[in-house]
Formats: sequence, structure tokens, C-alpha cells
Amino acid sequence: MSNKNDALVEQVMRELLKKGISLDDKNQSKSSGGFKMNDFLNSTSVVPEFVGTREIGDTIGMCIPSVDPMLLDQLHISKRYSVIGVLSSRTGAGPHIMAVDEAVKATNTEVIDIELPRDTKGGAGHGSLILIGGYDPSDVRSAINVALDNLSKTFGDVYGSDAGHLELQFTARAAGACHMAFGAPEGKAYGLICGAPAGIGVVMADTALKTAGVDVLAFGSPAHGTSFSNEGMVHISGDSGAVRQAVIAGREVGLKLLASMGETPTNDFPSYIK
Amino acid sequence: MSNKNDALVEQVMRELLKKGISLDDKNQSKSSGGFKMNDFLNSTSVVPEFVGTREIGDTIGMCIPSVDPMLLDQLHISKRYSVIGVLSSRTGAGPHIMAVDEAVKATNTEVIDIELPRDTKGGAGHGSLILIGGYDPSDVRSAINVALDNLSKTFGDVYGSDAGHLELQFTARAAGACHMAFGAPEGKAYGLICGAPAGIGVVMADTALKTAGVDVLAFGSPAHGTSFSNEGMVHISGDSGAVRQAVIAGREVGLKLLASMGETPTNDFPSYIK
Amino acid sequence: MSNKNDALVEQVMRELLKKGISLDDKNQSKSSGGFKMNDFLNSTSVVPEFVGTREIGDTIGMCIPSVDPMLLDQLHISKRYSVIGVLSSRTGAGPHIMAVDEAVKATNTEVIDIELPRDTKGGAGHGSLILIGGYDPSDVRSAINVALDNLSKTFGDVYGSDAGHLELQFTARAAGACHMAFGAPEGKAYGLICGAPAGIGVVMADTALKTAGVDVLAFGSPAHGTSFSNEGMVHISGDSGAVRQAVIAGREVGLKLLASMGETPTNDFPSYIK
Repeated sequence: MSNKNDALVEQVMRELLKKGISLDDKNQSKSSGGFKMNDFLNSTSVVPEFVGTREIGDTIGMCIPSVDPMLLDQLHISKRYSVIGVLSSRTGAGPHIMAVDEAVKATNTEVIDIELPRDTKGGAGHGSLILIGGYDPSDVRSAINVALDNLSKTFGDVYGSDAGHLELQFTARAAGACHMAFGAPEGKAYGLICGAPAGIGVVMADTALKTAGVDVLAFGSPAHGTSFSNEGMVHISGDSGAVRQAVIAGREVGLKLLASMGETPTNDFPSYIK
Repeated sequence: MSNKNDALVEQVMRELLKKGISLDDKNQSKSSGGFKMNDFLNSTSVVPEFVGTREIGDTIGMCIPSVDPMLLDQLHISKRYSVIGVLSSRTGAGPHIMAVDEAVKATNTEVIDIELPRDTKGGAGHGSLILIGGYDPSDVRSAINVALDNLSKTFGDVYGSDAGHLELQFTARAAGACHMAFGAPEGKAYGLICGAPAGIGVVMADTALKTAGVDVLAFGSPAHGTSFSNEGMVHISGDSGAVRQAVIAGREVGLKLLASMGETPTNDFPSYIK
Repeated sequence: MSNKNDALVEQVMRELLKKGISLDDKNQSKSSGGFKMNDFLNSTSVVPEFVGTREIGDTIGMCIPSVDPMLLDQLHISKRYSVIGVLSSRTGAGPHIMAVDEAVKATNTEVIDIELPRDTKGGAGHGSLILIGGYDPSDVRSAINVALDNLSKTFGDVYGSDAGHLELQFTARAAGACHMAFGAPEGKAYGLICGAPAGIGVVMADTALKTAGVDVLAFGSPAHGTSFSNEGMVHISGDSGAVRQAVIAGREVGLKLLASMGETPTNDFPSYIK
């Protein structure tokens, strides 16, 4: 095609963007949770609570060094800390919970609230609101930063298509976030096998459980253990090798089933469960 | 316009599709639940649980011939069967429930779970997860196939516009799916009159009930009997002719009210309630 | 660019619209709740219950002069009235509740139900279904009209971007709608400070409460006091000046945090909290 035509196409694209159509930009950075849209140091923001954002999942991290006591009374937290870290996203619950799980292991902080809005900008899953508490603002700020950086790993086994999505998570040693959100025993291996629409998750769970000897913690579905998201998910625990093997088997069958609904599902970051 | 311009338009459309914009393709097949995107026989999928998909509602049907006992313990089912059929969708609850209602009448199977995710890809209604149980995998597989084929009928009185949607359903003889989901007495006529945004459903219900002598089973609204969907819906039962008349009266007023919000609502399949 | 190219762009835009892509039209009227898409007097609709619609929030207002008694039994209302007004929207709960709050003050009507669907066409917040009752259809119809007209004010401090939204509300004297929806003491000043994704609302609330001496009524978050929306919101009451000051402080920090996630948030109507 001639340059003139390309110019026309460019003109149309500009027109579309002016009219408010959002384009999924696939040219995004593949490391550290995607585009750093902004961060505390090179920001024009003068909000002292700001820690950083990531484009993936529309995620923002903040830290309140000394929470107003009246607000502390109203927050729905498991333990009262005056330093509070906040990780909040539009899309993604599992990835954020797993990222915070790593963050609390690496810092002197604790998970004090996890809530799952039914958001994800119209998708089938959850967004997330995660609060962590600590004694030292630099610890909490550091934990939020670790979590933001971990998102590029924990989104690695999230596969999406127009028809639905899959999410797989694995940790050899679960900490407080997996425990609070999924009932995972701390210190043991934990795996999440999730498919949307929810029926795919039922077959993925069946396949996973037949593959390796693991403990079933729970099965989450639209009316049970989710905020009415369209997901079927099994939470498993046990021996690290068996959990990993079960997760991989669930992923394999899930990819085939979701692909049967149209497009091949793709992930935005490299898979980390191998 | 010249062919050259058409080529340019084509080029832009390709560009848009590459960038992830989804186009609602209106040229779809009007029979048997829309495009057969894939099915078990001519599929490249090697997942033995796969039964079929339909583009309408992003629907997938599957059958697990022998469910893992640990998973059976965790599923939220009303009765324990080892052969389980799964019908799962992103958009559409009523149409899928009605389609399964026909399917269980036609086969030796039973509905054992109905859950309504708040999904529909950003619309005002529900998706669905429906589990059926049976003793013979070929029965269950056949029931799922019947349900998939019924979708082209049960989506017939779903009318959508940018501002909202209407859904009307009618059966002269309700079976297990209508009973579990809506409390419909089995063997009697059942009707569903539903509008979104929810206020339209209130006026539709009022009109319907004034039209014919029927029994009111319940009124569902965002905070009652739905998963926070933006729907107002009345469930009615009684004499077949009266139920049908009430449903038709509700549809008439609903179409006018929804049209007053902008576009004329349209259905993707032929209306079946006459 | 030449006229010929503009014609091509026009052609593409038509093509897109045919294919079902919705364009956000920014050229809308800035008064009385946006475009009057239709109203009772100049309407082709012959539905007597119809009162009016507003494009903002996909809002429709209706009035049932004499509700069917069987329906009244099933509606989830706090008091039985036979004349019922209905305000129903796809997007927007706070603005509609505040608009009805003014409407019931101005008319002999009462709020009898407020329900918050998790809708907003894929956004992070709520839609709304609000029922009011009265003895005289002209009162109720007039209340719904007042509420529709108030939307252009109450949407004034709703700021949106691709990543989320903020909502601020203030009234010097709360009435029945604020009381039923938010627990606001009637007759006292009430303020709402809300951010999405929810974490932004946590920091906004903290800043607001540190700014002025107000009473905290509650903190709403995805799992508490919302229908799983992705919002953090604090409800405050007290001295009119202090409530207003707190709301303004929350707005300032919220705008900066949301802007850090990408686009600058914008409002569709002029801000009313000054």
C-alpha cells in the first residue's frame, strides 16, 4: 500500500482515538509489571502517599504513613496498624494476591485485608483491593514496590481471549496473602487453577485433580467463594511437585477448551509455571 | 464510492482488528444457537470432555464422564452424580436455563446446579453456569447438545440496545431447570418478563400482571434474586394461555420503554413467543 | 487534508457504526442531565407510565399511577404506596440518589427502595434502581422530573478516565434518599468521597478526615456496603462548612492519584462543590 493510504489510516486512527475508542496496545514492555506509567520519583504528582502504578490491570500502589484513627475504625482490617499499604487494581485478583504474597515474605509487613470487586472492566473476573500493615513506612512502601514489580511474573500464566480467560498460579511456599484469600496453609505449596467462563474451570479442576495427589482446599464458582465472577477455580495444596504438575495439567486442558470458543488465548507476560 | 476507497476501508478494519477492537458481526447464522464455532466431531480439540460451543452468549458445553470424587465433594450440587454435564456462558442466563429445561425433559438427566455470574461482558445481565447429572455419559452429552441447539430458540425473545435489554421466556410445561432457578412449579406453564435497566422491568411486570390472571412467583431486582444484575423481572406461573398473554403484554410495553432510551431494541434470533 | 480524505474517514466511521462500535460522543448538551433523548410530551411512545429519559447514565424515569397489588406484595419496598415513581440507570448511583434527595424535598413523596446493581456498562461503579412512593400521580411524576433535571448538577463532580473514576457529593441538608442509601442523618450536611479503583478512595478518605472535623458514617469498599463495585468511599456528616472542606480535600488528592494512572480525569458537567 502507498504512503498516502497509510496516512489515511493514521488519520482514521486519530479520529477514533478522539472519539474515545480504546485500542489494546500490544507493544507494551514485558518486564516488571508492564509500562511504568508513573512512579514516585519522576512524577509530577505531589501526593506523598503515591508509590507507583502499572498499566497491567490498571494497578496503583500507595502507602499511608499514619492513617487517620477514625478511618482505621471503619476499614475492614484483620489487625490495626497505623502504617497501611494499598494495592488496588481494576483487573486481576490472583496476580495481585500472589505478588503481595511474595512482598510480605520479603518485608516486615502483614496482609490485613483482601477484597475482590466484580470489576475487570467488563471481563469475567475480579479486580482487587489489598491492604497491608506495618510499623515502618519504608517497609510498607518497599512491600508495595515489590508487589508492583512481581506483577510481570504473576500475570505470566493469565491467558485471555475474547471468549474468556484462564489463570494459573503456583508458589512453593504460601504466605499470608494466599492464606487470607484462598485458605492456603502457610509454608506449604499452593496452586490455583481457574477458567472463565466458569464451566471451563470445572473441567480444568477435574483434570488437575486426576493428574497428581494433592489436597483440595475449595472450589470457587460464580455463587461460591467469588464476587459473582464467571470463574470456576480449584485451590490446591500439598507437595510442591504434585501441585505444580496438577496446575500444568489444568492449564493444558483449559487452553484447548478456551481455544475451542474462538481465538487462541494469549498471555501478556512470559509463563512462569514450568 | 470507488473500489479503491473500499480497499482503504478494508485496510482500516484490518488495522482495527489487529489493535484488538471487537466488531459485532451481524452476519451470523440464524439457526441452532448461531455459528457453530466448533464441535466435537470436526474439531482439532483433543479434549474428550468437549461437546460443543455456540457463539451466541459465548457458550461452551462439556461432559465429564467420571468426575474426580474430591472435586464432587467441593462442587455445590444438589445431588451426587458421577457423570456431569456442563453448560457455561458469558452472556445469557434465562436462555440457557430454558434450553436446559428442554434438554432434561428430553433425556434421562437432572439439573444439579445453576449459578449466575454477574458477567455478560459488561452488559446489564447475567452469564450462567449450569451443571446437570446423569448415569450414562451418552445421555448427558446428548442433553448438552440439545441445550446448545435450543439456544437459537430461547434467545429469540432477548432484545438488546445500547441502553439495555429485555428478555421474555415462556414454557407450557416447566421442568427442573425452571424449578431450580426460578421456583417454577414443575409441569405448569411458566413465564419470565425481564427488563434492563431494572426500572423498565418494574413497569413491564405491572403491565403483565394487569393483563391476565396469573400467579406471581417472585420479583427479582438488583438486590433480590439476582447477582446484582441491573434487571427487574417477574416470574409467573399458571394457566398456559394466561401466562403467554401476560408475557406478550410485558414485551410490548418493554419494547416501547427501552426504545425511548435511544435505539430500537433488536433480537438476534426469531421471536418464539406468539 | 483534502475533502476527499474526509469523505473516506466518514465512510470508515459509518462502517464502524454499522459494525456495532460505540463512539463516546463528547458534543453533548451540558444542561438538565444531558440530552433529552425523549420525554412524555413530544414522544412517539404511547406508554402512559413514561416520564422521561436522560442520556447521562442511560437513565429512565417512569410513574405507575396505580400499581398492581400482586406486584406491590413482591416489590422490596419500605412502605406500601399505590403510586410509585421509578428512576433507573445503567451508570451512576450517587448522582441519582442525590438527585432524588432533592426531588423528595421538593415534593410530597417518599423514597421506598434503593438498589444498586453492579452494572455501569463495564465500569467500576454502580447503576441504580430507585423507587419513590406518593399519594398523587402528579406529585410522583413531578418528583421524577425534578430528579431527572438534577442529574446535570449531581454528575458535576463525577470525574472519569480510562483507569477509574472519582465521585464527590455534598448536600447541606440530607433527606430520605441519603438516609436510606448511606445512613445520613436527615437535616444535617452530608458528604460522599469516593474513588475507583478502590484504593484511591482509601487515600482520599484519609486526607478528607484529616482536613476537617466531621463524623464518619461508614467506609464502603468492594466487600462492604457496595454491590462488589471497585470503589472506596467514605460517608461523612456534620457541620456544613467542615463537610464541604473535607469533600474538596478528598477531591484534590483523588484527582492527582487517578491522573497518575494515565489520562487526566474529566467531568461531563460543571463541578458544583465549591
